[in-house]
Amino acid sequence: MTPQRLDAAMGEMTQLLLPEVKEALRSGDDKLLAESVNALTEELLAADIADLLLTLEHDDAVKLFKALIPRKRIHAFEFLGLEEQEKLVENLGSETLGAVLDGMSSDDRADLFRHLPEAARERLYPMLAQAERNDVKRLLEFTEGTAGSVMSTEYATIKPEMTVSEALEHLRHVAPQRETIYVLFVIDEQRHLLGVVSLRELITAVVGSKVAQVMRREVISAKATADREEVAALISKYDFLALPILDDEGRMLGIVTHDDVIDVIKAEATEDAHKVGGVEALDMPYLETPILTMFRKRGVWLVLLFIGQMFTANAMSHFEKEITVALVLALFVPMIISSGGNSGGQAASLIIRALAVGEVKMSDWWKVVRREIVTGLMLGAMLGVLGFGQVLVRSWFSPQEYRGHGVLVAATITVSLVVIVLWGSITGSMLPIILKRLGLDPATSSTPFVATLCDVTGIVIYFAIAILMLRGALL
Amino acid sequence: MTPQRLDAAMGEMTQLLLPEVKEALRSGDDKLLAESVNALTEELLAADIADLLLTLEHDDAVKLFKALIPRKRIHAFEFLGLEEQEKLVENLGSETLGAVLDGMSSDDRADLFRHLPEAARERLYPMLAQAERNDVKRLLEFTEGTAGSVMSTEYATIKPEMTVSEALEHLRHVAPQRETIYVLFVIDEQRHLLGVVSLRELITAVVGSKVAQVMRREVISAKATADREEVAALISKYDFLALPILDDEGRMLGIVTHDDVIDVIKAEATEDAHKVGGVEALDMPYLETPILTMFRKRGVWLVLLFIGQMFTANAMSHFEKEITVALVLALFVPMIISSGGNSGGQAASLIIRALAVGEVKMSDWWKVVRREIVTGLMLGAMLGVLGFGQVLVRSWFSPQEYRGHGVLVAATITVSLVVIVLWGSITGSMLPIILKRLGLDPATSSTPFVATLCDVTGIVIYFAIAILMLRGALL
Repeated sequence: MTPQRLDAAMGEMTQLLLPEVKEALRSGDDKLLAESVNALTEELLAADIADLLLTLEHDDAVKLFKALIPRKRIHAFEFLGLEEQEKLVENLGSETLGAVLDGMSSDDRADLFRHLPEAARERLYPMLAQAERNDVKRLLEFTEGTAGSVMSTEYATIKPEMTVSEALEHLRHVAPQRETIYVLFVIDEQRHLLGVVSLRELITAVVGSKVAQVMRREVISAKATADREEVAALISKYDFLALPILDDEGRMLGIVTHDDVIDVIKAEATEDAHKVGGVEALDMPYLETPILTMFRKRGVWLVLLFIGQMFTANAMSHFEKEITVALVLALFVPMIISSGGNSGGQAASLIIRALAVGEVKMSDWWKVVRREIVTGLMLGAMLGVLGFGQVLVRSWFSPQEYRGHGVLVAATITVSLVVIVLWGSITGSMLPIILKRLGLDPATSSTPFVATLCDVTGIVIYFAIAILMLRGALL
Repeated sequence: MTPQRLDAAMGEMTQLLLPEVKEALRSGDDKLLAESVNALTEELLAADIADLLLTLEHDDAVKLFKALIPRKRIHAFEFLGLEEQEKLVENLGSETLGAVLDGMSSDDRADLFRHLPEAARERLYPMLAQAERNDVKRLLEFTEGTAGSVMSTEYATIKPEMTVSEALEHLRHVAPQRETIYVLFVIDEQRHLLGVVSLRELITAVVGSKVAQVMRREVISAKATADREEVAALISKYDFLALPILDDEGRMLGIVTHDDVIDVIKAEATEDAHKVGGVEALDMPYLETPILTMFRKRGVWLVLLFIGQMFTANAMSHFEKEITVALVLALFVPMIISSGGNSGGQAASLIIRALAVGEVKMSDWWKVVRREIVTGLMLGAMLGVLGFGQVLVRSWFSPQEYRGHGVLVAATITVSLVVIVLWGSITGSMLPIILKRLGLDPATSSTPFVATLCDVTGIVIYFAIAILMLRGALL
């Protein structure tokens, strides 16, 4: 880690404290250690303590973790990544560990259990209190990727017949155990969701009014089996702090909160980035993906692209006669076809992303085509001029190859570049829209896929233009 | 818009209401219209009313907007995109418009003004109340992309000497005008930030305690001139609801809230997607980007890539002698070099994204190389086998081209594919890490950039292997 990255990853406070914390960890006495560590970390936020733990050597991190007061321990643990959580789990006694696991928020705890191998899970269950054990087991039943798999079961509920002040008094008591108390869910005896009310509405309500009078009855909610991406889209659309998750009978099961949305959006962007790069979405961190999985997810696409590329050899062999007569034409094949692929890749990247964020809709296809025709012609013309210059200069140095037709060959390259860049721009921009129309993921029209398509067609376009323009001269 | 998209974009409620709303808009009488519209939209959330406005024809949308009660009007307006806001602004009378603009949250209002052309801005200023006019002008002074440019000035402040119940009573009164009352900022007479306290902490605090006793004094904050990405990273790291923005003297200027983070994260992902596709980040929606800007942002890279591709012609001309003797070798050039580019593009996409989300650090470079060597060899071997089969089959159909050395040529292709795919994987994975090391954006090592690099080097590798393996036989 360079100092620069350290800066970005750690708060200034944490960085200033690091030497002192290390010093404190050197003191042998457990009690002294605990005192100095807690004095040092008193004002630190949990995320910063997690940073400290990440920065220290593993043994020191375990030492520091044990020395923290229980509440800080739990919060700092929640801010660690799953890998680091797993490492700590292996090195903590069952008493410390049980308290941490019991105290964690229910969604983070379920995430950890989901991540652990079966054996580790079985070892941890007995450390949990009965209620927490049942909670984990229930949450683990939801398939990964569903709303149920990311929801928390610690939400604040109130009854419709409570007065506003009764509700506030109730919240004072339950607040410490709830993930949020800023959105309150009004439920009946069978836990059916009747309405929602925000803490802001509760505080500003007329004194003495009942919850039933101030709550909103039209509630936006999602089923536990819904895709987590849909849930993230709802929360982000309405700027919610929390979205209630219901079972099929409309009973409350949990909530998904605003901070979960950020994780889902990041995961979605990663999935798209992989697909656009011509890889099936890995669904796990690069360094943790087993080699065989990596091989499979890349191999599938690489083979498909390779099969596509085989047609370039077929296409070129159609023009063997021309190449034999004018070998110089073959030299420019990679340059010309890749220019089509590059402009196509640009257009595809722009449109895939624009579709993903909703800036371009399918109905805009004609606007897109018009833009790409203009842009493609301009870009093609620019490359055409460059290509003309390059070929002309080359022809001065090796005139025998061009047999006196340097200008004509240069003109052929120019026309080919204009047509192929234009063709690439149109293909690259339309492919994602067509895929979406067919109900497929637009990101599947990856940059290498567009490039391969442009390579094969580019060869045909190039030689066709060459035959037209050079017949009777070089050919 | 297909029905499918409509479904995703609009709540079920909105969709059910649409025919009735259209019906209501047909009634001539303004008062009747207002009554029926407000009855229909009473339980709708602002985001859904915004959806309704988007779905209607422009004239109907203006009609509906005017018929809404003022509070709904303001909230629905805030949920519209800048383009739609601009269109509405052009069609509303100054009285309606003034009330909407005054009522908007300060960051959304500043965004709109920032987006409008100078003339429209000047026309709107007189419609604003004095305080709001000053607020907009102050916010517009912050450069785009800074924390100041995305912050809201409507935050809730309390004094350190207040008791907890005084603070709660104060909040009851100011709540409607504040963007959030869940994070409270404790300031002195000069607006210096002394501490923060969450509403949850305030509610659960011991009755009678002073704000100064319950507030946290170590506050995470950002300067107004800070990059908005840094602010988003802080909010996302600590799971904050709001981050205070300060001036150089530590006085409070505004807050950035959790929902702004989602926008910033999306914008960042778009920027990376563009760069990886070989385009300079557009920084505005595709369809709104002027053609000349589009030309410039794509042209720069296309020209650089083209200049790189010119070297492929140079590289190939070095092997003209070999091509003349064995033309068949030229046929496989595009297929072989693009396989290197494709595997390199895959590796680059994976590593760029992994660096962006922090899954891979620069110090992991050796782990990455090892993985890519194994994966690259496996992928190369697979394509090698396919290539061997393809060339062998081709040689049966046109044996004269291979002059009886079909197997040897096939073996040459196989070895070339293994080496070039391996080389592509290593290059593609290392380039982003090297760029980051040099302080550049890893996303600059775009898929087409890696492909171009692999094309030029691939030609040299391919012909070198061919000369070694085919000397004395085909060559």
